Amino acid sequence: MIIDDLALLDQPNQQFQGFGLIRGAQLAQTKKGDPFYNLSIAKGPKELPVKVWSDQINGREEEVKEVLQEGRIIYFEGDTSTYQDQLQVTARSFRPVKENEVNLSEYLETAPEPIEDLQKELEGYIEEIMDPLIQEIVSTVYTKYKKPFSSYPAAVKNHHSFVGGLLYHTVCMIRLGRDVSRRYPSVNKDFIIGGITLHDASKILEYTNHIAPQYSVPGEFIGHISMSSMLVDREVQKILAARGEKAQLTKLEQEAVYQLQHCILSHHGRLEWGSPVEPKTLEAHIIHLIDMIDSRINMIDRGLAEAPEGHFTKVFPLGKIYKPSIDE
Amino acid sequence: MIIDDLALLDQPNQQFQGFGLIRGAQLAQTKKGDPFYNLSIAKGPKELPVKVWSDQINGREEEVKEVLQEGRIIYFEGDTSTYQDQLQVTARSFRPVKENEVNLSEYLETAPEPIEDLQKELEGYIEEIMDPLIQEIVSTVYTKYKKPFSSYPAAVKNHHSFVGGLLYHTVCMIRLGRDVSRRYPSVNKDFIIGGITLHDASKILEYTNHIAPQYSVPGEFIGHISMSSMLVDREVQKILAARGEKAQLTKLEQEAVYQLQHCILSHHGRLEWGSPVEPKTLEAHIIHLIDMIDSRINMIDRGLAEAPEGHFTKVFPLGKIYKPSIDE
Amino acid sequence: MIIDDLALLDQPNQQFQGFGLIRGAQLAQTKKGDPFYNLSIAKGPKELPVKVWSDQINGREEEVKEVLQEGRIIYFEGDTSTYQDQLQVTARSFRPVKENEVNLSEYLETAPEPIEDLQKELEGYIEEIMDPLIQEIVSTVYTKYKKPFSSYPAAVKNHHSFVGGLLYHTVCMIRLGRDVSRRYPSVNKDFIIGGITLHDASKILEYTNHIAPQYSVPGEFIGHISMSSMLVDREVQKILAARGEKAQLTKLEQEAVYQLQHCILSHHGRLEWGSPVEPKTLEAHIIHLIDMIDSRINMIDRGLAEAPEGHFTKVFPLGKIYKPSIDE
Amino acid sequence: MIIDDLALLDQPNQQFQGFGLIRGAQLAQTKKGDPFYNLSIAKGPKELPVKVWSDQINGREEEVKEVLQEGRIIYFEGDTSTYQDQLQVTARSFRPVKENEVNLSEYLETAPEPIEDLQKELEGYIEEIMDPLIQEIVSTVYTKYKKPFSSYPAAVKNHHSFVGGLLYHTVCMIRLGRDVSRRYPSVNKDFIIGGITLHDASKILEYTNHIAPQYSVPGEFIGHISMSSMLVDREVQKILAARGEKAQLTKLEQEAVYQLQHCILSHHGRLEWGSPVEPKTLEAHIIHLIDMIDSRINMIDRGLAEAPEGHFTKVFPLGKIYKPSIDE
Amino acid sequence: MIIDDLALLDQPNQQFQGFGLIRGAQLAQTKKGDPFYNLSIAKGPKELPVKVWSDQINGREEEVKEVLQEGRIIYFEGDTSTYQDQLQVTARSFRPVKENEVNLSEYLETAPEPIEDLQKELEGYIEEIMDPLIQEIVSTVYTKYKKPFSSYPAAVKNHHSFVGGLLYHTVCMIRLGRDVSRRYPSVNKDFIIGGITLHDASKILEYTNHIAPQYSVPGEFIGHISMSSMLVDREVQKILAARGEKAQLTKLEQEAVYQLQHCILSHHGRLEWGSPVEPKTLEAHIIHLIDMIDSRINMIDRGLAEAPEGHFTKVFPLGKIYKPSIDE
Amino acid sequence: MIIDDLALLDQPNQQFQGFGLIRGAQLAQTKKGDPFYNLSIAKGPKELPVKVWSDQINGREEEVKEVLQEGRIIYFEGDTSTYQDQLQVTARSFRPVKENEVNLSEYLETAPEPIEDLQKELEGYIEEIMDPLIQEIVSTVYTKYKKPFSSYPAAVKNHHSFVGGLLYHTVCMIRLGRDVSRRYPSVNKDFIIGGITLHDASKILEYTNHIAPQYSVPGEFIGHISMSSMLVDREVQKILAARGEKAQLTKLEQEAVYQLQHCILSHHGRLEWGSPVEPKTLEAHIIHLIDMIDSRINMIDRGLAEAPEGHFTKVFPLGKIYKPSIDE
Repeated sequence: MIIDDLALLDQPNQQFQGFGLIRGAQLAQTKKGDPFYNLSIAKGPKELPVKVWSDQINGREEEVKEVLQEGRIIYFEGDTSTYQDQLQVTARSFRPVKENEVNLSEYLETAPEPIEDLQKELEGYIEEIMDPLIQEIVSTVYTKYKKPFSSYPAAVKNHHSFVGGLLYHTVCMIRLGRDVSRRYPSVNKDFIIGGITLHDASKILEYTNHIAPQYSVPGEFIGHISMSSMLVDREVQKILAARGEKAQLTKLEQEAVYQLQHCILSHHGRLEWGSPVEPKTLEAHIIHLIDMIDSRINMIDRGLAEAPEGHFTKVFPLGKIYKPSIDE
Repeated sequence: MIIDDLALLDQPNQQFQGFGLIRGAQLAQTKKGDPFYNLSIAKGPKELPVKVWSDQINGREEEVKEVLQEGRIIYFEGDTSTYQDQLQVTARSFRPVKENEVNLSEYLETAPEPIEDLQKELEGYIEEIMDPLIQEIVSTVYTKYKKPFSSYPAAVKNHHSFVGGLLYHTVCMIRLGRDVSRRYPSVNKDFIIGGITLHDASKILEYTNHIAPQYSVPGEFIGHISMSSMLVDREVQKILAARGEKAQLTKLEQEAVYQLQHCILSHHGRLEWGSPVEPKTLEAHIIHLIDMIDSRINMIDRGLAEAPEGHFTKVFPLGKIYKPSIDE
Repeated sequence: MIIDDLALLDQPNQQFQGFGLIRGAQLAQTKKGDPFYNLSIAKGPKELPVKVWSDQINGREEEVKEVLQEGRIIYFEGDTSTYQDQLQVTARSFRPVKENEVNLSEYLETAPEPIEDLQKELEGYIEEIMDPLIQEIVSTVYTKYKKPFSSYPAAVKNHHSFVGGLLYHTVCMIRLGRDVSRRYPSVNKDFIIGGITLHDASKILEYTNHIAPQYSVPGEFIGHISMSSMLVDREVQKILAARGEKAQLTKLEQEAVYQLQHCILSHHGRLEWGSPVEPKTLEAHIIHLIDMIDSRINMIDRGLAEAPEGHFTKVFPLGKIYKPSIDE
Repeated sequence: MIIDDLALLDQPNQQFQGFGLIRGAQLAQTKKGDPFYNLSIAKGPKELPVKVWSDQINGREEEVKEVLQEGRIIYFEGDTSTYQDQLQVTARSFRPVKENEVNLSEYLETAPEPIEDLQKELEGYIEEIMDPLIQEIVSTVYTKYKKPFSSYPAAVKNHHSFVGGLLYHTVCMIRLGRDVSRRYPSVNKDFIIGGITLHDASKILEYTNHIAPQYSVPGEFIGHISMSSMLVDREVQKILAARGEKAQLTKLEQEAVYQLQHCILSHHGRLEWGSPVEPKTLEAHIIHLIDMIDSRINMIDRGLAEAPEGHFTKVFPLGKIYKPSIDE
Repeated sequence: MIIDDLALLDQPNQQFQGFGLIRGAQLAQTKKGDPFYNLSIAKGPKELPVKVWSDQINGREEEVKEVLQEGRIIYFEGDTSTYQDQLQVTARSFRPVKENEVNLSEYLETAPEPIEDLQKELEGYIEEIMDPLIQEIVSTVYTKYKKPFSSYPAAVKNHHSFVGGLLYHTVCMIRLGRDVSRRYPSVNKDFIIGGITLHDASKILEYTNHIAPQYSVPGEFIGHISMSSMLVDREVQKILAARGEKAQLTKLEQEAVYQLQHCILSHHGRLEWGSPVEPKTLEAHIIHLIDMIDSRINMIDRGLAEAPEGHFTKVFPLGKIYKPSIDE
Repeated sequence: MIIDDLALLDQPNQQFQGFGLIRGAQLAQTKKGDPFYNLSIAKGPKELPVKVWSDQINGREEEVKEVLQEGRIIYFEGDTSTYQDQLQVTARSFRPVKENEVNLSEYLETAPEPIEDLQKELEGYIEEIMDPLIQEIVSTVYTKYKKPFSSYPAAVKNHHSFVGGLLYHTVCMIRLGRDVSRRYPSVNKDFIIGGITLHDASKILEYTNHIAPQYSVPGEFIGHISMSSMLVDREVQKILAARGEKAQLTKLEQEAVYQLQHCILSHHGRLEWGSPVEPKTLEAHIIHLIDMIDSRINMIDRGLAEAPEGHFTKVFPLGKIYKPSIDE
């Protein structure tokens, strides 16, 4: 019997013909010097090691390298076996997936609300910004990067590490930020909405892709905090250029832009947590704390999803968290 | 012209007949060995040094000591002069205030919403708690200490350091806590409301009084975090005693009580900030962060109240905070 | 030849019939879905993995679960084999130990002095307390929990992690505390004895049991520091109740109780080491330091017991410790 | 006798007619409500408090405010007196300095080498950069800001806090950086020269002016580290715009720009010292350490300049530094 | 009436003829350029500012400088007055004390037990050391420095800052160390006694003198921890030299010397507290903790000596310490 | 075919006859109680596990123990096999290498410049020291330990961990130190050269040997920082002894010696990095920073030597370091 769903493989000597998402791909060499691939192939939460031996590689190295990349979905055929107590698959053949052969969402975890709804909601919030310059900056950056902004995760692991995680995290934070604004009249909602929308925006530059994200070179060298602030600066430069050669911002416009950039730069809250400046406005303090609330709740919800009730479970990086017993 | 309002004294050689709140009182000695008092007397935000010399003390030391206590309001007559560049008053006579002679709220800063409204609002929240044991514990503690709970500040300085500050801080936190509960379905609102209501409850034991609060002996030795948890334990012991000699909590009841105490004990968030345990439940994490949001907003609002716009002002312990310019 | 002493098993293909203490027990499933147990069974310092397969479980799951609990001693028969280079035993049959079949002390490490002697010594010290209220509180708590107090360890690992460890650690600390009191006349011996007796008392609540101790739910949520202080509070409440409805402690009694609780709450010495308040009395400082002396000596003595002379050995958490060469 | 050199004023009742640099200027009010100015006026290292009373202000408030600004040099006449044990001057009249009336360098501390020489030297170093893109970016930024770059200090206090300090610090660091490059062949001199030239470049934005520098609003909100990196980004955007609409950097160009920005962003060496990323290239590590060498030597040289030999002197923020005895 | 006891001066216009210990002496200049001395002169705990004007200095500057040194006792005559609210004395004449004119102990605080007794006790302990080499080293160092060892303080301020403080601190620590050795048989008493005797021995080099001690140049540059270890090395070198040209220690002797030096070098317990190595032997751990016990008790005893009962008092560097109420 | 070069062994069932350096040697026991050796034998960067079974040990235990020591080169014959996926060799016979049988440098990594050249260069620098006493001390210590000084590594791992590493690190630091001296005239070159020469000199005592270095007993107990300072003290004592019985250093000589020792003791820069005192002279600060520059460059050069270009590689303890892409 041939199994066509990766999620069903569970013992040695099964035959498989089907699809899988490459989450990890490393080219290695046998002791004899033959090339082979160690892949890690997943469907949803199921993930298995897959070997591709040299007979499938020799003579078409470049083509294989192109196909077996992290983040790609492939069709492959193979057999299961056990190696060091662990189930693995040896691929006998493989090819790239064809368009529309698979439903992507079966292979990747995605945000718990529809992306389109989240986009609409966020766009509505951006329209609420009353300062026209801040609205223009935020809206332009969002519009320009709307596609990756809607697909990238908010973190490589821990919290919101799923397709659409950045968008979902942003919207959840604004929901809470608007609640806070409603409660405390001294809060300037423009910076809450604008600052939250852009605070992690350049995660789309910090990670290599949205399916099997790694830190990119600019992610390592510059970091999303600085790059998000830089996105604001680029818009300001363009707006100035459009206004004419020697145009300058008014004093109040300039102050507003500095405040927006400050909300972004200070949102990790402390120097030792990676912010080059610490919060110095009311809104910057609030954004930092809302970020902690939303990300911790997401970490805990995800970390306890499969955990036993009435026990403590380690949820990185928070340590032990208790999942309460249920009254039966 | 005799001035009868402390707030109007502003230069030497003025005569005064009126009331004032003693915020500080220290008995000292002149070089010749005569006793005198250095008082600090206030009406609302206005505060002046007042001297009481030995001629008013000798022969009735005990009576004077009784009257000139921190937190008391007195009627006194005197004259202003300048000492080391600062205005001071020399009291020529004084007596305790009589009942209803003054409107207390003119002398003390109080919460920005009426105490009765805040009490009603908090009582409504406590009724929302669905777990009957948790509701009983929270409700009983609140009812027993309702009076000091409604008058004590939430901190000696920095944030919510006014009459009713504890109650106001508690209600503001619950408002936000309920917002968070509404946004995230995994949050158990019982612990949010119960934990917030009791998290600072024993500030009424940690400070000496609500008018000129100092740290009390149990405040220094035990601290409000441990004492608030102890108040829960005392209620549990009483409930058990009422249930009968060998009564024990059910397993679920016991777990709920532990969670409630944990929310209290962990609300400072980190060992080095004074919590003996760090947050290990979803609600404990949230309460800690909401506490930071509400107290920081209050610090900043109060710290910037008199500050110039378009400048940075030091707001202890947060450092420099910017008060934005106003569009004119 | 059948071996009847677990400590003698040392190679594959030995037959065993005898007793062992279950130190760890985990129910698992084979890939086929059959249940089996991974046990860790010990006699004194010797500890071996033991497998119980499904043929012994199926049909009597509940009974087996009852017997194969951590901390139980069982009689079992089985054979040794090697699995991944390590000796293990496959149990062919097993049953609970019968009363008096074994000498418990062969299976569990215990304090190096007889428990009864240590109890008598501690009781003598408690009688030395001169303040009647402090003596009553300390004596009542000790008497109520005398049994677990005499069997629990003082820590899950590192120092005094043996049966009677809590009692032994307590007595050793008081011995040193009395030495210090003798040397420095300003020290109040009542708090030294009372504070030491109760400082770790609620370890009996913090751990699940005394044979294979784990952190309990209240251990994680509240911690022994807060619970030990709470035990004092409960006694005070009872004493007050016995004195009559509106009874209150005298000012000096109240101060003494606060000092006793303070010695308990501050005994870890620093906020970041888990004390909610730092030492603020002479005796609190001394108790903290004596705790460090006795626990470090115990860690080092135990850590070096089997170590080679003339070498450094890692003793967690102290790092490398040298065991001196012996003059031969 | 009328004294015409501020540096010579040293006792009460002297008459003065001459020039001085306003280092501090605060408008205040007497108790009667009259305006007056507290100035701090300096010539080289000599600095005195100067009062300007209301008779000189009333009726021409705006004009006076314009003249009495920090960083301005004025001509004034007045008399010395003693106030609270300290010499001060009461100005009887004042006016702005006229062009070329004074030699600026008598009033301001400046770099120990001629500015023009330092500029030439730096320009020579920039020409040594071999990567054309890096050279273009560095050269363009330097040229655009050459004037403030040559007059601003490198720090508000501590090290290189004099006119031209930024330029001098930059050149000194490159001298040392070139020495290091010569010693270690793996070092890429382009990033050493380019990174050092730009590492503190936006100090010209972080401070308000070069004569009596304070932190500016963008200095507080964004900081020189982020702004210096932003200056690089602006040049890159302009270069791309010049190349054509959809132009992109080549992979190697992009990597070089990232490395340049990384040298700037990481030059404080650690997150807690204000860098949003820590050094991840050889050159970034070296620039950070050379920055520490040059700034510490400057702090010590300046801190010990007036200190007694054979003694320790406090040099902020390094602590006590010893100035060796001299062999006589 | 002429007062001849410094301790009795308490108001202006008193005449004084008597002795005093110079605790501080600074040569200064009036605005006119005349030299004068600001002295601080003490008898026991009483300490007053004393001025010596130029009329007593001019023409005999060198002689005066010789006499008016910190740590000297002088005879002087003068009158009291008030300056800035503080009593001070203007000396009209002065001369050095003559031998035996005064009882030194009236001017300096000394150890609470007779120095001779403490010396004898310490010598007895040193004789208890059983390892002959360790005894020889410890005994020789002690004997060589017996005089300053018996007069220097153990710290400049905080704990044991009195004449004989080093000796007293050493003896108190050994008393406790012997108690610990008696309780724990694994402790090697030789290193306890030897290590404690030498742990602070080079405080006699770290401070300038024993009467008005300041940090010396080697104290700042090298520190007592390194210098005490160096004293051991010097004895070892001498012992080896005495044994003959190429003599070496035996392996066990060498190990013992290393352990002795290690007890000295590690006695601050942590790198950040100034030890270059952290404790790696049982005895090193114990010495560090006993040092903390004895110094903290001394700080608290001294800090609370004059403090009110039933209150908290700041005891540097421990923070607030409570002095218990007394049962009346 | 018999292979005679360890570096060529690469698969099971190969026969070997040749030489190898013992980098690790541990005597162990089989379960049956037979002795065997686990060796780690290397040639250059190649390192393989080698087993020596009991048949080669029994009856000549002492002789074998003498031969199979870390740091020795042996001739051995054996066969390769695979154990747990790793290639290993079973030695059938072995003997010590004979003199001149092998070229040592094939077996050990050595400094990248010839040792003799480095020695000459260092000796030239020492001659540059102008203070005769400092020169005498530095020169004498160097001359006495020239041989180990020229062969020991500068660290066990990380940086300069090769034969001659200490000498090479010392010379590289002085090269840079002389550059710095040339740039900043206030720097005293004597202490730069002398301090650098001796700063790590006692690494020759801190490690057990130069071929397979481990921390020695004095390395653990005292550390190279204290021992290097002690080497200075020993020379001073000898110089004094040579000058005559009661000879003392002049004040300037003494100060110079203290400064030299201070440069050594403070060169780790901070207490928590193991220096007992922090830098308090200009030269001490510079030496600390030059040490960081030279060691970090060496770590990075070595850590990236084999790393792929255009990627980040972990370089302990610096974290991720980028190896730039190469323009092809």
